[in-house]
Amino acid sequence: MSTRAGIVVTGTEVLGGRITDRNGPWVSARLLELGVDVAHLTVCGDRPADLLAQLRFMADQGLDLIVTTGGLGPTADDLTVAVVAEFTGRAMHTDPAVRARIEAVIRGWGKYDDGLPAPVVAAIDKQSLIPAGAEAIAPTGTAPGVAVPATDGLPAVLVLPGPPHEVHEMWPTALATPAVAAAVAGRGEYRQEMILAYGLSEADLAVTLREAEKAVAGYTDLEITTCMRGGELEIVTRYQVAADPAYRSLSELVLARHGDRVYSTDGSTVDDLIAALLDGRTIGTAESCTGGLVAGRLTDRPGSSAYVLGGVVSYANEVKSGVLGVPPELIEKLGAVSEEVAAAMADGARRVLGSDVAVSTTGIAGPGGARPGKPVGTVCFGVAVAGRETVTVTRRFPGDRETVRRLATASALHLVLAALRTPEADAAR
Amino acid sequence: MSTRAGIVVTGTEVLGGRITDRNGPWVSARLLELGVDVAHLTVCGDRPADLLAQLRFMADQGLDLIVTTGGLGPTADDLTVAVVAEFTGRAMHTDPAVRARIEAVIRGWGKYDDGLPAPVVAAIDKQSLIPAGAEAIAPTGTAPGVAVPATDGLPAVLVLPGPPHEVHEMWPTALATPAVAAAVAGRGEYRQEMILAYGLSEADLAVTLREAEKAVAGYTDLEITTCMRGGELEIVTRYQVAADPAYRSLSELVLARHGDRVYSTDGSTVDDLIAALLDGRTIGTAESCTGGLVAGRLTDRPGSSAYVLGGVVSYANEVKSGVLGVPPELIEKLGAVSEEVAAAMADGARRVLGSDVAVSTTGIAGPGGARPGKPVGTVCFGVAVAGRETVTVTRRFPGDRETVRRLATASALHLVLAALRTPEADAAR
Repeated sequence: MSTRAGIVVTGTEVLGGRITDRNGPWVSARLLELGVDVAHLTVCGDRPADLLAQLRFMADQGLDLIVTTGGLGPTADDLTVAVVAEFTGRAMHTDPAVRARIEAVIRGWGKYDDGLPAPVVAAIDKQSLIPAGAEAIAPTGTAPGVAVPATDGLPAVLVLPGPPHEVHEMWPTALATPAVAAAVAGRGEYRQEMILAYGLSEADLAVTLREAEKAVAGYTDLEITTCMRGGELEIVTRYQVAADPAYRSLSELVLARHGDRVYSTDGSTVDDLIAALLDGRTIGTAESCTGGLVAGRLTDRPGSSAYVLGGVVSYANEVKSGVLGVPPELIEKLGAVSEEVAAAMADGARRVLGSDVAVSTTGIAGPGGARPGKPVGTVCFGVAVAGRETVTVTRRFPGDRETVRRLATASALHLVLAALRTPEADAAR
Repeated sequence: MSTRAGIVVTGTEVLGGRITDRNGPWVSARLLELGVDVAHLTVCGDRPADLLAQLRFMADQGLDLIVTTGGLGPTADDLTVAVVAEFTGRAMHTDPAVRARIEAVIRGWGKYDDGLPAPVVAAIDKQSLIPAGAEAIAPTGTAPGVAVPATDGLPAVLVLPGPPHEVHEMWPTALATPAVAAAVAGRGEYRQEMILAYGLSEADLAVTLREAEKAVAGYTDLEITTCMRGGELEIVTRYQVAADPAYRSLSELVLARHGDRVYSTDGSTVDDLIAALLDGRTIGTAESCTGGLVAGRLTDRPGSSAYVLGGVVSYANEVKSGVLGVPPELIEKLGAVSEEVAAAMADGARRVLGSDVAVSTTGIAGPGGARPGKPVGTVCFGVAVAGRETVTVTRRFPGDRETVRRLATASALHLVLAALRTPEADAAR
C-alpha cells in the first residue's frame, strides 16, 4: 500500500493566474523522489472556507500527508496556520522560541532601534502562533513552518511558507520532523527514470509505446508519462523496484527505435552534457532574437563560470557589425536573418570573446518583423568550434514570441551539443 | 450572489511537477475578467478515480461552472470526457459531425492516403464520443471540446483540450455555448485594480492595510491580495463596481504612505515604463552574474528592437576588460564585484554598443564565489545615462542562485527606471 499525499497551494495571486506557482511542482517532484504518491494538488485563494474545504477533501480521499505552501505572512490574508488548526481541531498557542527567533530576525534589520512599533509586535505575535501538539520548524525568513502529526482519521499536515527559497531551505528539516517522518514511513520503494530526447514527436513515441505494450514483459507495472517542453521530449517512468527488468527492456526498445534522438538516459540535462563535453574548452554566445536567453541558460548552471566566457547580445544590426564584425553589406544583401549572418556572428563571438566554441541566433520572434520567405518563427543558428568549419542551420518554430524565443534557446543548446558530439570536434582540439 | 467556478487541470506530468501548467492560470484570469469568481483550482493525474473525486468536490462546494483542461487525446490515459460523463450521469454517444471533422483533419495530413489504419480509426472513434445532451465544440487540433449544461445539483462542465493554443482558440466558442453562457449569466460586475511597488515590504504594507481597515469606509467590500515576486510587491484589489469609492480611498492612502515606492497604478510593468521613458533613446546592458537575463527581459517585450541595441555578457574578467574596456588593474585591486567595476562596465557598454543608456550587473549568484565582505547574493549595479554621472549601488539578495539572479534582474530594471525618472536625466538629453 503506497503512501499518498496531497499538496495545497494558497494564494489569491496564484489562483487568479497572476503568478506562476513554483512550489506545487517542486514539492510534488520531491515527494515522488521519496516514493510518495502525489494524488491531488489544489490551489485556493485567501479565503478560510475554501482552504478548509480543500483540506477536508484531501482528508476524505484518505491521504496520509498534506503539504501546504503559502499564507504564513504577517498580513490578515495570511491564514493557513489558523485554518489548519481548525481543520485538525487544535487550539492555537504562542511558541516562545519561535517568537524570540522572529523578533531577533526583525531587530537584525536595524530598522527599529528605537523599539518595535505596535503593528510590528502584532505581526510577530501572529507569526508565532502554532496549533497545540504541532512542531514549529525554524523560519528561514520570518515565517516558521509547522508540522502537525496525523491523528485518527486525519492526515499529517506540513505547513510551509510561500517564498520558494524558504520552502527549499526548510524542506530537509521538515522531512525530519516526527510528524512528517511517520507519515511517509509506509511508502514503497519506487524508482523514477527519465529518458530525454530532442527532435522526437510524441506521436512517434506513441507508436513505440504501443509496440512495447506487447513486447515488454511487465509493461503494465510501469507508470510512463511523456511531456514535451521547449522541444525536448521527457519520457519519465516510475515503478516499484521489482519492475526493474521491465524498465530495462522498455529503455532498450526506446533506444533501438529512437537512439539518434535520445540525448540523455541518466537525468543529465543538455546544460550538464555541454559542460562535460567542453572538457576544459570555453564557450560564448552571439544572440539576436533570443536576446540573452541562451547566455542566461548557460550561466544558470552553478560553476558555469569555469567555461562560459560571456556573450554579445547583438539585437541591433549596428551591434552585429560594430561589435561582432559582421560585414554590413552581408546584412544589407541577405538580411540579418540568414545563415551567412549567423555564421559571421558565431565567428565574431569566438574572436571577440576569445572562446573555443560559440553559438549564434538570429531570427524573427514576432509578432512583427516577418519578411517575404521569412515568416515569424524563422531562426538561423551558427555554431563555431575552434579548428572546424562553422556550421549553420535554419529552423522555423511555431507559437507566440515567448514560445519562439524559448524553443530557439533550447535549439541553440542542442546544436552546440550535437557539434561537440561529432568526432571532428574532438579531432580538431 | 456571485457566480463561482472551479478549474480542473489534468495530467500526470503537471501533477508530478515536470511541466508548468499554463492553462489553469490562463482560464482563471479569463474567468476573473468576466466577473466570475474562481474558488478552486485542482490538478490531478491520469487516474479516473482521482479526477472523479475532484469533480465531486467542486460540485459539493456549490460551484456554478467547472472548466477542465487536458485528457482529450487519442491515447488510453486521456479519459476526461468519459469521467465527466460518469460524473454527470450521462451516457456517451458518437457525434457524427465531430467524427467527420476529426477524420477530415487527419486525412488532411496526407499520411494515410492508402486508407486509415485500425489504430487511427479507433483513435477517431474515441475522440468523437461525447456525453448525451452535451454540445461538442469544434476542435482546433483533433480534440473537440465539450460543454455539458448544469442540471439540478450539478454545475455546468466545460471540457477543454490540453495544448494551450487550442484552449485559447476554443475559448470564445466555448463561452458562447448555451451551457456555459447560462452558467455565467448571474455574475456580478467586478473591477480589478493593481498597484505595483518596488522596495516595499509586505510587513510595511500590512501596517498601512491595518490603518485602512479603520480609515477607509467600505474597506470590507474590497478583496485585497498582496504578492511579492522578484522584489516587486503587487497589491491587487477586486471589488464590485459599487465599492469604487472605497477603492479610491484605499489607493490614496497607499500612495500617501508609500508613494515613493509605488511605480505603477495602471497595470504598466517596469518594462513598459522603461520603454515609454526612453522616449526615443536607446539602451544596452553589461551583465556578469545575471548572464544575459537583463537583456533577455528587456527584449521579451514586443517592439523592443526599437530601443534595445543589445548587450555584452561579460561573465569572464577577460571579457570585462577585452570587450567592455574595464581596466584589469581595477578588477585586480577592487575585485570584479565592486561598484567601480560596475560603473566601468556600464560606461563600457554605452561606448561599445553606442547606446544612450546602459545598465550593468556584477555579483555573486552562488553557490560558490563568496569573498570576505562579499557574501553570496552581493550584486553591484551601474546605470550610465548620456550626459550624466554614472550611478552605482550594491545590493545583497537572499536565496539560491536562481533567486539571486532573478532578484538582481528585477533590480537592474528598477534602477534604470529610477534613473530615467530623475529630472537630471531629462535635463541632460
